[in-house]
Amino acid sequence: MGFSIGHQLRLTLFGESHGPAIGFVLDGLPAGLKISKEETAAWMERRRPAQSIFTTQRRERDDVIFLSGLREDHTNGGAVSGVIYNQDVISKHYDEIRDNPRPGHGDLTMFLKYGEWRPYEGGGFLSGRMTAPIVAAGSICLQVLNRAGIEIVSWIEQIGEVRCDHGPPQGQDGAYAFDTRMPDGECDARASLLLRDTLSEGDSLGARIATEVRGVPAGVGDPIFDSVEGEIARFMFSIPGLKGIEFGRGFGFAGSKGSEVVDEIFLEDGIFRTRSNNNGGILGGITNGMPIRFDVVMKPTSSIRKPLRTVNLKTGEEKTLRVVGRHDPCIGIRAVPVVQTATAIVLLDILLRDLGPGFLRALEEGHEEPED
Amino acid sequence: MGFSIGHQLRLTLFGESHGPAIGFVLDGLPAGLKISKEETAAWMERRRPAQSIFTTQRRERDDVIFLSGLREDHTNGGAVSGVIYNQDVISKHYDEIRDNPRPGHGDLTMFLKYGEWRPYEGGGFLSGRMTAPIVAAGSICLQVLNRAGIEIVSWIEQIGEVRCDHGPPQGQDGAYAFDTRMPDGECDARASLLLRDTLSEGDSLGARIATEVRGVPAGVGDPIFDSVEGEIARFMFSIPGLKGIEFGRGFGFAGSKGSEVVDEIFLEDGIFRTRSNNNGGILGGITNGMPIRFDVVMKPTSSIRKPLRTVNLKTGEEKTLRVVGRHDPCIGIRAVPVVQTATAIVLLDILLRDLGPGFLRALEEGHEEPED
Amino acid sequence: MGFSIGHQLRLTLFGESHGPAIGFVLDGLPAGLKISKEETAAWMERRRPAQSIFTTQRRERDDVIFLSGLREDHTNGGAVSGVIYNQDVISKHYDEIRDNPRPGHGDLTMFLKYGEWRPYEGGGFLSGRMTAPIVAAGSICLQVLNRAGIEIVSWIEQIGEVRCDHGPPQGQDGAYAFDTRMPDGECDARASLLLRDTLSEGDSLGARIATEVRGVPAGVGDPIFDSVEGEIARFMFSIPGLKGIEFGRGFGFAGSKGSEVVDEIFLEDGIFRTRSNNNGGILGGITNGMPIRFDVVMKPTSSIRKPLRTVNLKTGEEKTLRVVGRHDPCIGIRAVPVVQTATAIVLLDILLRDLGPGFLRALEEGHEEPED
Amino acid sequence: MGFSIGHQLRLTLFGESHGPAIGFVLDGLPAGLKISKEETAAWMERRRPAQSIFTTQRRERDDVIFLSGLREDHTNGGAVSGVIYNQDVISKHYDEIRDNPRPGHGDLTMFLKYGEWRPYEGGGFLSGRMTAPIVAAGSICLQVLNRAGIEIVSWIEQIGEVRCDHGPPQGQDGAYAFDTRMPDGECDARASLLLRDTLSEGDSLGARIATEVRGVPAGVGDPIFDSVEGEIARFMFSIPGLKGIEFGRGFGFAGSKGSEVVDEIFLEDGIFRTRSNNNGGILGGITNGMPIRFDVVMKPTSSIRKPLRTVNLKTGEEKTLRVVGRHDPCIGIRAVPVVQTATAIVLLDILLRDLGPGFLRALEEGHEEPED
Repeated sequence: MGFSIGHQLRLTLFGESHGPAIGFVLDGLPAGLKISKEETAAWMERRRPAQSIFTTQRRERDDVIFLSGLREDHTNGGAVSGVIYNQDVISKHYDEIRDNPRPGHGDLTMFLKYGEWRPYEGGGFLSGRMTAPIVAAGSICLQVLNRAGIEIVSWIEQIGEVRCDHGPPQGQDGAYAFDTRMPDGECDARASLLLRDTLSEGDSLGARIATEVRGVPAGVGDPIFDSVEGEIARFMFSIPGLKGIEFGRGFGFAGSKGSEVVDEIFLEDGIFRTRSNNNGGILGGITNGMPIRFDVVMKPTSSIRKPLRTVNLKTGEEKTLRVVGRHDPCIGIRAVPVVQTATAIVLLDILLRDLGPGFLRALEEGHEEPED
Repeated sequence: MGFSIGHQLRLTLFGESHGPAIGFVLDGLPAGLKISKEETAAWMERRRPAQSIFTTQRRERDDVIFLSGLREDHTNGGAVSGVIYNQDVISKHYDEIRDNPRPGHGDLTMFLKYGEWRPYEGGGFLSGRMTAPIVAAGSICLQVLNRAGIEIVSWIEQIGEVRCDHGPPQGQDGAYAFDTRMPDGECDARASLLLRDTLSEGDSLGARIATEVRGVPAGVGDPIFDSVEGEIARFMFSIPGLKGIEFGRGFGFAGSKGSEVVDEIFLEDGIFRTRSNNNGGILGGITNGMPIRFDVVMKPTSSIRKPLRTVNLKTGEEKTLRVVGRHDPCIGIRAVPVVQTATAIVLLDILLRDLGPGFLRALEEGHEEPED
Repeated sequence: MGFSIGHQLRLTLFGESHGPAIGFVLDGLPAGLKISKEETAAWMERRRPAQSIFTTQRRERDDVIFLSGLREDHTNGGAVSGVIYNQDVISKHYDEIRDNPRPGHGDLTMFLKYGEWRPYEGGGFLSGRMTAPIVAAGSICLQVLNRAGIEIVSWIEQIGEVRCDHGPPQGQDGAYAFDTRMPDGECDARASLLLRDTLSEGDSLGARIATEVRGVPAGVGDPIFDSVEGEIARFMFSIPGLKGIEFGRGFGFAGSKGSEVVDEIFLEDGIFRTRSNNNGGILGGITNGMPIRFDVVMKPTSSIRKPLRTVNLKTGEEKTLRVVGRHDPCIGIRAVPVVQTATAIVLLDILLRDLGPGFLRALEEGHEEPED
Repeated sequence: MGFSIGHQLRLTLFGESHGPAIGFVLDGLPAGLKISKEETAAWMERRRPAQSIFTTQRRERDDVIFLSGLREDHTNGGAVSGVIYNQDVISKHYDEIRDNPRPGHGDLTMFLKYGEWRPYEGGGFLSGRMTAPIVAAGSICLQVLNRAGIEIVSWIEQIGEVRCDHGPPQGQDGAYAFDTRMPDGECDARASLLLRDTLSEGDSLGARIATEVRGVPAGVGDPIFDSVEGEIARFMFSIPGLKGIEFGRGFGFAGSKGSEVVDEIFLEDGIFRTRSNNNGGILGGITNGMPIRFDVVMKPTSSIRKPLRTVNLKTGEEKTLRVVGRHDPCIGIRAVPVVQTATAIVLLDILLRDLGPGFLRALEEGHEEPED
């Protein structure tokens, strides 16, 4: 279990890091939505390894080959599916890993749950590589949301000790102007310096990723078990290495007084708004029309140059492991487009439930017809 | 939507704060599990208002009346259901609220989504009162887990500026020795002082609640979309006022280096363990046998004595609201047993999927038979 | 498991035949839909025992006490829930049954699955009594569908050797003019005669129940695993004693030639129609705008005066059982309103997914407002 | 929606009849189960077109290319996925169909629901071709069940007016000895004669397919909404052209007296059995240990040589359609392996829920280890 999520919009993944291919099935998109494959390719590129010196040097094109669900770049009503072939797979790097679980990775838990037939190479289906089909599917949802006037911005707010409080970058894709996915040049410069040092030490860094969603209608989402927060949180924890999520002021609430953080209500141009947005746009599980705001934290890459102690699964002997494979000094950087597009999947599912497929079809009015 | 959660163990809630009753249906427990209604009553008492000066003075017994699923304190294989009648309901307190949404509450979002027929009194089904049936159902699951050797401890680590790093209290119920649910007397004294001051100011405080789960078998849970973290997180966000969750070192990872936080592996008495537990017992979505550790944050009660500005829903005029109803200075205190028992529901669902119902039935071997 | 069903509209049942109460939770109705409790009471009456000499003489009022989800007869956006208290419960009738499973009932399978703690009295949660909350919930859905111009008619087409091919009765409630739920007086007279004979012999009869749904929009439902046929079928098999379902010409297709049964298409007033309706209004899992037509079969009541051989669960000895309790000569008769209202639940779920909640809210336009 | 089904074992399909490929994702198989790809290939062969003169002459190898979930023919714990490339696709045959929906097919309903971007060629995702990945996934489940001592036999009981009451064929694969999938040579001869005549007339025939499952443990399955009958029925209706299902005596119950059909209980070698099996092995939704027995009906192929009247979607003009594509005279024949393997998917899901993954792992004890 674990390969499917969603209610009205259901995403299923398949594949393993070092198998022939990984892919996705996205079921629930109404027919007639325009989808740009180029746009999807651009998003794949943002998640792709070897983008900069700060991401692993494994070279993969990550081309999405669509197998169903589209006719001439429009959804046809069926499940949209696609595969990404695994290239540049060097399994011998992983020979040692089979018997010596890497600390901080899922190697040991994979062995404990699945035993000797597990796909240990490169983390198998626990690998960060499984986020590639998430980005592919999410880029489709994001396109649809964009046309509905919804914009999702993600960026890095903190890498190690470098924290940037400058707020979101310019525009939905603003962070991709910088290798560090920080929101502006100044923060990027500081983070770059730190990352270079960390790389040269063979160490890694954690990161905090911020997301802001603008344009979500007020009054969508459900209370209690289907809250917008709960739905987003559940999906986010599918991202390997993500260990926390907070909405609005989040953990800052613990040290706050009510009088400092209650979001007072006012009316602006006939729209209810709040003077502050400590609740991150969600109250009672339901959107209030303010931007949705949440942060997630990514732990530092566990694969570092420093020797780490582990135990051989067959002999039970202690073993010191020096990881060799190709890895990122800060997996948070490549997680940015994953968080961003994953948010699109969750929100589109929520909108489909609350507004019905009709609101999406209305977006496509006056569209071109299929060719003869 | 929003009233059901779970896979093999499915919880459904019903009711509203000021309706005749609230209740739960818990479907998926195998037959023959021993359940103590007294134990459930004890848990209800821990969540109940008017427990101390730090919780709202609304007086309700919160007796759970079981309607199905039990025969002489054993599960009978059917859905276990129960109702809790709402008593001491003073709806007139809420007349003003109908038209003047309280800032920080779900009043406005409830109006935006559900319109004029919504149950605005006391927050309706967005009320913290909906956590009473969660505790009822969760107390049943916790009993079952306890007999399987699993213990869940929750306590308050932080209230406002008082932070307590003393670790968990003694035993599963240790925190209930103290009105503040802090883990020991010293922390309790400090927090009590702060709470008294806050009460006298008519203000409120946020809180951080820690949870530690011991005895969960290694190798349970699923990767990707059904990760242990994702399942716990999704349930936690059903608790009104909860705005963040982190596992293990959580947001502390953002400022960390990999070399400081990778959990090295060793073998102790034939069991794999890690020297540190920064990952909170979960890697790749699956348990590694170390204690599961997570923190959640609860925002300060939004109902405070300070006048708050809002907008009248009918006239659109600005309005200053002074909340009168009965409320807690720190809702985090009463959320402790909710977090604790909710964790039990999620974990029992996971165990049922991974180990099958049989492992639970095995716990009851040598049990007494039903009376003639 | 087994107590919940549905996607956007989720029904959860609880209770046992001889426990204190049975009930339902219906989650997913948009706010503001008008619901008549009297209409629900009328449907409960149609399913109620002791309606005529052809139904069991157990006397229960089956009053539905709503616990949530309504404000002044309008849905309030939360889960609608209700309980029906079990009255007139004579458990001593069932003492013998505990150890001697009644042939044809679920007594043995309940023992095999749930063991000694099972609620054997009156069939527990396998009892036909569990259909009472289905009717309660379904009557709500049917009211909503009726206002959307959708009518669901169910009637008995066959009881034992009496078959009636006169087509549907007049109007949605037409069959309730007759004790036998046959569509007209002539068929009713023939069936009554047969039922009287059967009663006097202490025997029972099977039945075939037909259902016709008019006014369902064309183009709703989903292909493959969420087909309209599959959704209806899955729900129908929750009715105890129901052993088959067929759509349109159903099993008659087996002996047919394609040339005889293909439904040719024509246009009438701008609407696509078919000259015949052998497919029962559904093709490819999706409605085509013709009436949905399906039949189900109910087996004869297994509780008959004739002595039946069984085996004592404790001693393993053969035992001859003469059933004493109060029962129907043809359970098919009381199943008619169950089939009818259950169909409403399934269809409303499908419409909510395909058309969104908005189409329902539009039905209520110009409605009255809540009282001050 | 419509591309996923299942609880603990979840099947997702993707693809369209005339797209590049169709495929499946099967999530929930425990690691370490032995799977023979040759066995899967053999099942694909049984469903494959052009097997005999009685099946369409479209020639496709239907090779399943596994993309994940296996290591050296053992499940690895992840989702098993596979694709089948569409070959021999002649889309020009379908040019006429785009605007002129074929009576009896889903062409019109696909247009009504999905509009102009739908994949009309060959029925798109409403095509019988979507059953190929069902057979692929089901053949895996069937192998697992077989090792657990469970055997599923399907065969044709009736084609048109030829009915065969000889009972099941010899062994699980017995029906495949005959082109007509009848259980023995005599019935096969009669059915062949009829089919030849029908072919020469350019007509088609319906069929009744019987299934018997032996070796399912008693006491599995759930009551009410997750009954074994309901689960099987829901899956079966995903098969295009299937219009009815009945368990045990099924519709024959309508004309029966209780005294004739109640299955009396006896004990044989310590096992509860029933003297007759009118209930088809299921009571109260739960298995009683007798063989599970159900019949489904397949309508005649709608594509026949006889001209059929339809309406042009663009002009609204009546049109007479003469179908040219390659088709089966009796789609029931090729549906036999689909019904059989689909049953395996449903039952394995039920067993996983009731017995847990452990019972499957126990089957593999003493198995070989992965190669170094």
